[in-house]
Order: sequence, then C-alpha cells, then structure tokens
Amino acid sequence: MAFRSLKSQALQTNMDVDYVISYRFANTDKAIAVAKFEQLVKALASIGLATEVRNGDMHSVLLFIRVSSEQHLFGEVYRSRVRDWIHGVRSAAPPKETRKALDTEPLYEAERLRIIYQLITNPVSEGGAGITPKEGEWTNVESIFALHDHAYNKDWIKKWSTSYFLNMEDLDEIRNRLGEKIAYYFAFTQSYFTFLIFPAAFGASAWMLLGHFSPIYAIVSALWCIVFTEYWKHQEVDLGVRWGVRGVSSIEIKRKAFKYEKEITDPVTGETVQIFPATKRLQRQLLQVPFALGAATVLGSLIATCFGIEVFISEVYDGPFKSLLVFLPTGILTTVMPILSGILTNFATQLSTFENYETHGAYETALTQKIFVLNFITSYLPILLTAFVYVPFGNIIVPYLDVFHIAVKPFAENEEQIQVPKTGFSINPARLRKQVIYFTVTAQIVNLGMEVIVPYLKRQFFSKYKQIQSDRAARSGGVAPDASANDPPEEAAFLSRVRNEAELDVYDVTTDLREMVLQFGYLSLFSVVWPLTAVSFLVNDWIELRADAIKICIEMQRPIPWRADTIGPWLDSLSFLTWLGSITTSALVYMFSNDGLGPDGNPSAIKGWALLLTIFFSEHAFILTRWAIRLAISKLDSPGRQKERRERFMVRKRYFEENLSTLEKIPKIAEAGGDVDRASLEEDARTASVKTSTVVNRFWARQRGWKDTVQIGRELIEKAAVERRNEAKKVQ
Amino acid sequence: MAFRSLKSQALQTNMDVDYVISYRFANTDKAIAVAKFEQLVKALASIGLATEVRNGDMHSVLLFIRVSSEQHLFGEVYRSRVRDWIHGVRSAAPPKETRKALDTEPLYEAERLRIIYQLITNPVSEGGAGITPKEGEWTNVESIFALHDHAYNKDWIKKWSTSYFLNMEDLDEIRNRLGEKIAYYFAFTQSYFTFLIFPAAFGASAWMLLGHFSPIYAIVSALWCIVFTEYWKHQEVDLGVRWGVRGVSSIEIKRKAFKYEKEITDPVTGETVQIFPATKRLQRQLLQVPFALGAATVLGSLIATCFGIEVFISEVYDGPFKSLLVFLPTGILTTVMPILSGILTNFATQLSTFENYETHGAYETALTQKIFVLNFITSYLPILLTAFVYVPFGNIIVPYLDVFHIAVKPFAENEEQIQVPKTGFSINPARLRKQVIYFTVTAQIVNLGMEVIVPYLKRQFFSKYKQIQSDRAARSGGVAPDASANDPPEEAAFLSRVRNEAELDVYDVTTDLREMVLQFGYLSLFSVVWPLTAVSFLVNDWIELRADAIKICIEMQRPIPWRADTIGPWLDSLSFLTWLGSITTSALVYMFSNDGLGPDGNPSAIKGWALLLTIFFSEHAFILTRWAIRLAISKLDSPGRQKERRERFMVRKRYFEENLSTLEKIPKIAEAGGDVDRASLEEDARTASVKTSTVVNRFWARQRGWKDTVQIGRELIEKAAVERRNEAKKVQ
Repeated sequence: MAFRSLKSQALQTNMDVDYVISYRFANTDKAIAVAKFEQLVKALASIGLATEVRNGDMHSVLLFIRVSSEQHLFGEVYRSRVRDWIHGVRSAAPPKETRKALDTEPLYEAERLRIIYQLITNPVSEGGAGITPKEGEWTNVESIFALHDHAYNKDWIKKWSTSYFLNMEDLDEIRNRLGEKIAYYFAFTQSYFTFLIFPAAFGASAWMLLGHFSPIYAIVSALWCIVFTEYWKHQEVDLGVRWGVRGVSSIEIKRKAFKYEKEITDPVTGETVQIFPATKRLQRQLLQVPFALGAATVLGSLIATCFGIEVFISEVYDGPFKSLLVFLPTGILTTVMPILSGILTNFATQLSTFENYETHGAYETALTQKIFVLNFITSYLPILLTAFVYVPFGNIIVPYLDVFHIAVKPFAENEEQIQVPKTGFSINPARLRKQVIYFTVTAQIVNLGMEVIVPYLKRQFFSKYKQIQSDRAARSGGVAPDASANDPPEEAAFLSRVRNEAELDVYDVTTDLREMVLQFGYLSLFSVVWPLTAVSFLVNDWIELRADAIKICIEMQRPIPWRADTIGPWLDSLSFLTWLGSITTSALVYMFSNDGLGPDGNPSAIKGWALLLTIFFSEHAFILTRWAIRLAISKLDSPGRQKERRERFMVRKRYFEENLSTLEKIPKIAEAGGDVDRASLEEDARTASVKTSTVVNRFWARQRGWKDTVQIGRELIEKAAVERRNEAKKVQ
Repeated sequence: MAFRSLKSQALQTNMDVDYVISYRFANTDKAIAVAKFEQLVKALASIGLATEVRNGDMHSVLLFIRVSSEQHLFGEVYRSRVRDWIHGVRSAAPPKETRKALDTEPLYEAERLRIIYQLITNPVSEGGAGITPKEGEWTNVESIFALHDHAYNKDWIKKWSTSYFLNMEDLDEIRNRLGEKIAYYFAFTQSYFTFLIFPAAFGASAWMLLGHFSPIYAIVSALWCIVFTEYWKHQEVDLGVRWGVRGVSSIEIKRKAFKYEKEITDPVTGETVQIFPATKRLQRQLLQVPFALGAATVLGSLIATCFGIEVFISEVYDGPFKSLLVFLPTGILTTVMPILSGILTNFATQLSTFENYETHGAYETALTQKIFVLNFITSYLPILLTAFVYVPFGNIIVPYLDVFHIAVKPFAENEEQIQVPKTGFSINPARLRKQVIYFTVTAQIVNLGMEVIVPYLKRQFFSKYKQIQSDRAARSGGVAPDASANDPPEEAAFLSRVRNEAELDVYDVTTDLREMVLQFGYLSLFSVVWPLTAVSFLVNDWIELRADAIKICIEMQRPIPWRADTIGPWLDSLSFLTWLGSITTSALVYMFSNDGLGPDGNPSAIKGWALLLTIFFSEHAFILTRWAIRLAISKLDSPGRQKERRERFMVRKRYFEENLSTLEKIPKIAEAGGDVDRASLEEDARTASVKTSTVVNRFWARQRGWKDTVQIGRELIEKAAVERRNEAKKVQ
C-alpha cells in the first residue's frame, strides 16, 4: 500500500528535474571515467545548471540537472526570442523588459526544454556547455533526456483513445509538450486521417457500384490526392503562424560533423567562414546515381526472383507441398529484405555524411531523399512488376520461369510437375488485386504490430537480462550490484523509474512520417485496383495515431522538443507520388478495364499507342488540374494568414508613424498652390534675373500664376472657336 | 542660317518643361471647354505645379508644366522612397534628413518624371491632382507627355548603331532616362541576343554537318532554351537589385476602372475596403475557355482553309495561271488575318476589363495571357498543321481537298486539271521547311519593316493633311488657323517641335516584348526543321534593338518611365514554349528522321506507339533537366544578390545592436557558475525551508554545489569498478 502510494507519487513528481544525463563508464578506465565525470559536472555548473548525481544501472551514474535560478533562464529565453525576430520568425521584437515579455507570451514547456537542451549542447563559443552525447570527448555521455510527465501522458492517451477526432487544442497541447516537430507529424496524420474519410466512403461505394478499375474512381481519387497535398501545404503555413515558428527552417543549425576545406572571408558579412566547395560536393552527390541504380538492381532482382519463384510454384508447379512451397518466396523476402535494406540504409547514411553538408537541414533532406528511394523500391516495385510486366508480358515470360524449377526440384516426384505447359497458359488476373490487398491491409497491420510489440519485447528482454545478471552477481557473493541498493527510501521509486526511462529508445519522428507518406503512395498509385484501400487505411490510421502516442509515452524516452515549420522533404515525396499516380492509375485503368483482362478480355490485345496516349492525356490533365487547384487554394484565406498579415501591418504602421515625424517637416507640395505658387514663381524669376534673363526664364515668365494661364487659355480657345465658325460659313 | 541655329537650339533646350498636356476641344462646346480648362489649370496649381499655355494644332492648346520649386519635389521623392522601404523594396530606410537622402542617392531623371506624373494622375485623396487623360471629366485632356531629350537621343542612337553589344552601362543609361520597365525590355532582348550567338553558330554547323532533323541538334537546342529561360530569371533578380526595384511589382496600383460590389472592413487593417467577390470574377474568367476555343476555331479554320486551297492548287491543280493562283491563299491570309486578330484582340481587352481586376498588374497579366493565346494560334498553327496533319495524314486528306476546286474552277479549262489523282499522290516533304523559313526569315523582315515604316507614313500623311487643311482655310480667307501664327519668335522653333511630339503615338513596350517571345517560340518549337533559324534571328535582333531605339526616339512620344522588376507574364509564356518545344521537337525528329520522309522514307510508316514513347521520354527528360538546371542556377551567386544580402545583413546587425543594450542588462547564465550557483542554490533551499521542506527540496539539497556532486560521483564510479573486479575474480 505504502509502496503503491510511493510509486504513484513517483509518477507524479519529476523532482523539478529538467534533464537527466546517463553517464556510462562500463568499459572505461576508472581514473579517466572520474576525470571525465568531473569535467562534465564542471561544464554544467559553468552555465548555471544545478546537478545531483545518483547511481545508475550497469556501471552508469545518473546526473540530474535543473536550472539553478529561473532569472537566468529568462535571459536565455529573451535572447532566443530576439534571435527569432531578427531571423524574421516573429514580425515584431519582443518587449524590451524581460519580465513583461514573459507575461505577454508565457514560456511553454517545450520552449523551456528546448532552450535548456541547446544550452547544454551548444558549443562553448556560443555560451553553451558544448556537451555532445557519444561524440568526441563525451563518449561516456550515453544520453541526455527529459523525464516523462506521466500525469499528462495518462490524460493524453485516455483522451485520445476515447475520441474519434483530434481538435486543434489537442495539437496545441502536443506542441506545448513535445515541440513543433512532433506536433507537425500528428497534425499531418490527423489531417490525412480526416481527408481519408471521403475516399473511404467513395471507394466503398465505387467498389460496390462501379467495380474495379473504374475510370470514375480513378479521376476522383486523383483529384482527392491533389487537393489533399495542396491543402496540406496551405495548412502547414497556417500552423506555422499559429505556433509562431513560420520560417524557423531558415535558421540554420550548423552540423558539428561538417568538415571545411578552406576558410574565406565572406564578401557580405566580412566574417571568416568555413566553406566546402559546392563543385566538390556535387561530385560526391553524383554518387547517388550509382547508389540508386545499385539499390534498384539489388532489391529489384531479389523481388523479381521471389516473384518468379512464386509465380512458378503457384501457376506451374503442381507437385506435393505446393500449399507450403507457395510461402517459400514470401519467407525469403521477409528474411532477406530487412537485412538488405538495413545495409542499404546504413550505406545511404554514410553517403549523406560523405556529402558533408553544412547544416542539419541540408543533411536531413539528402538522407530523406535516399531513404525514400529505397522505400519506394521495396514498397511499390512488387506491384509494379505484376501490373506492368507480369500481366502484359506474362505469356512471354512464364515459359522462361522454369529456371526456377531447381527451387522445387527436390520436392517434385516427376518432371511433368515442374514442366511449364507449352500452351494454354493463362495469366492470373486476380494476382494483382491479391497483392494490393496484401500491401494495404496485411502489411499495414503487421507493421503496426511491429511498432508496438518489438520495443515491448526488447524492454522485457532487457529487464530479464538485468535480473539474471544481478542474480548471478548475488550468487557470486560480490557486492550486490543492484543500483537501487542504497537509494534514499523516499527517492527509491522515483529513481527506479528514471533508471527505466534511461534504458528506453530515442524517438525518431521521421520514421513515422515516412510510414504515412508511403501509405499515401499506395492510395495514389494503386487504389484503383482495389477501391477499399482507403477504408483499410482509415481504420489503420485511427489506431496508428493512438499507437504512436502510446509509443512516445511508454516505449521511448521523452523526445527533445525541436522546432519545425514543415514536414520537410516528405512534402516533395507526396507531390511526386501524386504525379506518378496520374500515370500508373491511367495505365492501370486502360490495361485492366473490364476486370483485369485488357480491353477485350485479353492482355495481349493492349494497344501500345492507346496506352501511351491515355498516359499522355491523363498526365497533362493532371498537371493542368494541379495548377488550377493550387491557384484556387492559394486564394483561400485563413486565421493564421490573417494573424500574420495583421502583425505585418502593425509593424509597417509603426515604422510609418516613426517616419511621419520626418515627413511632416517637409512641406507637402499640395500646400503650395495658387498664389503661393505665384509667389514662388516670382521668386524664381527674381533669382533668374540676377543672371541675365534667359529664353527659359522669359518662357516661364509670360504667364504669372495660374490665373494668367487660364486667362490666356480662354482667349486661345475662343479664337479657335471663331475660326471654326468662319470655316463653317465658308463651306456653305 | 539663323533659323537652323534656332532649330538646333530648339532641340537642345526643353525650357525646363517637365510635362506637356495636350488639351483638345475640337468637338466641345466653347463655354464647357473654357470651364474644364480652368479646372485643369487650377488642379495643377493646387499641387504646386507652374503652368504656361500655348496654342496647339487643330483646336487644341498645349499646357506646359514644371515643378514650381525643387524643395517641394524633394518632399515627394522622400515620401515615395519611404513608401518603397515600407513595402520592402529597399532594405534600409532612407536617411531622415531629406537633403542628405538626395545626396547619398541622387534623384535620376526617370524617378523625377515618374513622381511628377504620379503627382498629376494620382487621386486627390492621395495628394495628387487626379487628372486621368481621356477618362471621366478629363475627356479633353488628350495626352500627358514629357519632352524628348534630343541631345541624349542622338548620342544614344549613334552609340548603339556603331557597337555590336550593349554593356551594362548602356542599360543603366536607359533605366535612368526611360525607366525600369523599358530598360527591362532592352535588357531581355540584349541577353537573348547574346545567348543567340551559340545556337546560331551550332545551328550553322549542324546545318552543314548533321543535316535536318538531327537529334543531336534537337537536344542541344532544347538544353539551350532551358538554360536561357532559367538564366534570365536569375538575371531579372539581379537587375532588380541593381536598379533598386526588387519587389516593386508587389506595390499594387489600384485600377480606376475597378468597380467594387460591396464595401467591407478589412479584418486585418480595420479599414473599409472595396471588394469584388472572387467567385463572381472566376465565373467571368471562365469565359476565357469559350473565347480561346472560339478564337482557335475561327483563326484555325481560316488558316486550314487557306492551307487546303494552297495544297490543292500547288499539288493537284495544273491548269493555267497556276503560278499566280498559288499566291491566292497567302493573299487571303494577309488581308483577312489582321482584321480577324484585330477584332479578337479588341474582344480580349473587353473581356479582361469585364473580369474587373483590382490592380493594374492583375489586369495586364490577364490581358497578356489572352493575347498570347491569339498570337500562339496565328504564329504557330500553320506550321503545326503541316507537321502533324499534312505530312502524316496527307495521303488521306488530299483526296478530300477537291472541295476547293471551286476556288479555281473559273480558271480551269477542263475537269482533269482539277481532279485529284486517285493514286500515286505523294506529299511534298519540302513544304514544312519552306514554311519554317517563311516564318523565321520573310515574316521577321516584313515585321521589322512595318514597325519602322508604317508610323513614318502615318506621320507623313498627318502633316500633309494639316497642310491641306491650312491651305484650304487660307483660301477661305478666314483667320489663318496656323497654330504657330503668333508664337514669340524665340519660342517658335521649340513650340513647333512640341506640336510635332504631341502628334506622335504612345509607345507600348509589351508589343515589342511579345514579338521577342514569339520569336523565341519558333526557335524552341521548330528550329530543328531548319537549324539556320537562330542565324536569321541573330541578324534580325541586332537590327531590332536599334530599330526600337530609333522608334522610341523619333516616332513615339517620350514614354512615361514606369518601374518594373520583371518582364512579367511573358516569363510564363517563355517557360511554356520551352516545355512545348520538348514535345514538338522530339515528335518532329522521330517523324521526319531521314529527311522528312518518316522512319523508312514513308510517313505512313510512322508508328503511333513509337512516336508517343519518344514524346513521353523527351518530355520527362526535359522536366528532369530543367529541375537540375534550375537548381544549379539557383546556386549561382551574383553581385546583385551579394549587394542585397549585404544590405539585409547590415539592417539585421543594426537591429541586433539596438537590442544588445537590453540583452546586456540580463545576467548571462554563463556568468553564474560554480559557487555563485551554490549560493543561489542555498538561497533556493532557504526559500524552500520557509514552507515545510519537501521531498523535492531534500532531493536537491543532498549535494551542495558541483564539487559535492563530483565527490559522490567519484565514490559511485569507484564502487562500481570494485564490483567489476570482484565479478572478474569470481569468473576465474
């Protein structure tokens, strides 16, 4: 009972801890470990952070950190806000008086944590402690993490798991707790989820009424894809303004790993800057081409092989164990594929590092692009193969498939069983649909399961492992290595909780984002094959959103709250997939119209020129439509945009008023009219007559003031009128 | 002799005149004419402009205007510059002290004239005189124009006609005299001219070595088109910065003709604004679709008919007068086409007006787009017909051409002469090349001639007409209506010169721009047919540049110097033509490979799928390449961009320094380290112990200052080390 109360109390309080550093010295010499530890604490103290050390698990200590005095922190906050203003993130400068600035715009948790984290990690030159986990001299610093706010987490999950939709407040809440970058992920997924309702409903009815490969469905879904992509871009801006992060991506964070080639003095600022020649980087970037090709061939051939075997077994082979052997290729894929893509991803990372980018943003973009290529191949190639190779050219290819008979030879009783029938082989139109269903339902569910279960098992394993260790140690009669041995009882529960959180993984939002984008890809590329796709995704994503929340709360360390004003390079991936969709969908519709058997029930009857013409038209129709939709959406106004415009207007107004004072001093021309003007004219004349009066002076002196001009004008006009009358007379 | 000196003097002096208003009252009642005239002069005087009136030609008076005192003008200049700064056109505010502002950045002629013109035309509410020539109550105000600077004009033309290239200074000069908008046209044409040298050289060698329809030429020319278009965009920005007009297009000038539907209070500024619902405008804009289709059908059918007749006569008919009759269709075209396109252009203008845009920019864009569509049809359709209808389907179509035999029936002696041979008709491959040559050489020369000669003849005619009139009047013995009758002798020459300039046309730069863009179109769409195209253009444009200069100097009134930071909507036309080129060129290359007779010497052998595949690949290659080139060019730095960055940096720096003072007041966290921190901690503890000391306080009180932390840490680490040793022992 008492324990339970302690436990729950432990979950309530965070002991005012801002960050915990897990310092691990398992394989470091004692003396060095101590020295480094001292260095660490000193560094933290030097930037005004209070520290407490406690024992950690398995040869590690936990260093608790908090800001020693709020007053200090406010200074940092003000600095960061001024920096934002100067980089144009906020249109107006924060009030000069700090306290006031914080009252008008209170500090939110994520902002606080971000600033402290930057304080810890920024280089000393920029007033930080320059502590870089696992890097350079800080190899012993295993991780820097904030403590979960369990009370909030509990409410969060409770609330979400009982509500169908997330409203703006929910997203704001996330932004306040976990920072804009993660908030953007949830905002995107939420918006995607909401948009999915339409294609789900329409898809369902299309499935019932229009059948497969319906052109109507194709058009509607393409339109939907465009609208969604473009509208999200519109929303992004809005959120950026709402959260006051519009343009943060332009504040570039230097990469510590960046290696400069030479130092030059910037022609603009006059400061010496470290540069890496763009040409040289370009050369390195060109390696992406062989990389992409290589990846395509490696993964492609693996997929193609398995595909071939599968076709062979399911459609040619008819010996024993067929029902079992059919799963052989799937088996190969599920085992080999992860390994391969793991290797390739690793390679992609190295390549991006080798490209040696100056800023985090550039680096992440480069990496994301490569990752996208890999995922594109692994996710879509199988379906593309079926649709555009197997179906149209099946009859030609299948006979050659007997190369794979070696795969099943051991099981076959006689040759006939593995002989490709010379004639009468007909391709299996259902295959494509089966495959799409597999990727859009089965794979998604598996994926979701993995996300939640794998980390869970991992944690289980670790705790077991620790258990065994401590037991062994106990048996060995050594000093009990149990970290919690001499914890102060009132802290015990809290500390054990922290020890657990120290073991958790670090959350990476991009993987979740990637998942969503790839899912969107199936919708835009292949949903015409099976209109129920969106329904499956709708269900999946409702759970996904909650599962991610749970994952962050329970299975990951509390993420460092970074800022962002976009989902970044994934946006381009979205646009690309939408575009590609316009090609694949139209092609599929043409090829598989009347239920997967080509125009006249036979794929061989597909006309090349007709297919290409279809693609040509649909693609250009797409480009045109997208342009129109973009235009229309750009016209839409929104609270965020209004807010921004208002702020801009206010700033502008203030500037103008500041300058008005000067403007007033200058006589407006309008003030000088009529006779004033006459006076000034005469003055001009006088000044002129000082020097000999010139033609010009005489020219302007003929009429004094506007009244004279009018007078002369009248005379001229009247004279002209007279002439006219005379002429008229003469004509008679 | 005396006269000649007067004449030359007249050309030297402008009598300090800033603007001349030609006030015509030919068909207005005398009384009203006088009243309106008084109103006009009064309005001018009210904004501090000095006026002199003189007699004009044919029932008109000339009103000479100048700023009565420079001091007044400076105020206006300062105002306009502050406005620029507030709209972000200039990154820093002009020095508060006007005189200083004008010293650091002297007033250039175009700026002066622009500001005065705006002063005259701006609505009274904005401190102008609200005089709108030919509009509303100012119907009698025929034109407001500045006087040519003949001395400068002479040097200008002399200089240009003797130099091959224009350098930056020449363009700056134009900008200072005629304003940025015209300067941009010359800059564009100059840059285009320079770029032309490459395709001209390459084209010539391709013509000699590679023959027609060479894929190599096609690729190179496509690349060139992309590079030129993208590089010009890059240059535009640079020029914008150089001339200090970057972003002026965002300063929107309200259209006086704009009719608002309802007034609302702007949610942002709180001011009442007049709006016209976007939806309603969209409805009106949709009329563009029927308009475009209508124009296409009307012009298209005309062209098609003439084309048909021509084919019929030249390839079917073999009766008398054939050599003459061949010119029949050309005759029809040259007579009917201008009329038709005149009507359509007029219609386009009305449509754009009907769409009721709020700003001049939006209106011009809308109009330009429509004009482009018309010109696209008239310029390129004939060639497209030949290439993609006549050649591939000639054999099918020609037999039906005998509908045109009525056109020549009267001349035919017998039926055979107008009978389409049932068999053995072969299309004429040379036709396409002939046509391209016609459009890229003959038409260009004719065009150039028209530009220079027509206005000249017009002027001749007018002076004759006036002559006759005055003679008749003289015979009729009425008062001699010769305007110059009672000019003061010393002004006579000057006034007669002004009277001439009053008669001249108003220069419209967009027509010249259109010409260039359309010319570029031939290059990107069809130059593969005849690689010498660029050579012809190179010669043509060298003359064009000079001819335009002469045109502006001699045959047009001095243009009002408007500002601009781009060639505007024509940029989109350029991109579009480049894109389209990637399609037409590839198609032409495929269809006409081996000299205009299809793949195997017979157009009928063209494979639909192969053609489409070619187009598909080339188009996507194009999109990819353009993306790459865009990226590469965006990386290029330039003096202009550096200048801009420097200014931005300076402003930023100043802001930062302004705020630094505040920042200093706040204690940097870094200052508080080690023991200071300890102190603050103890203080915290004290404040805590006032209330009952909580778990949290005790947690943080265990280690006083960082030295304690280090101490405890050491102990923990050492203990762990000991354990490890024990374990190691036990294992043995």
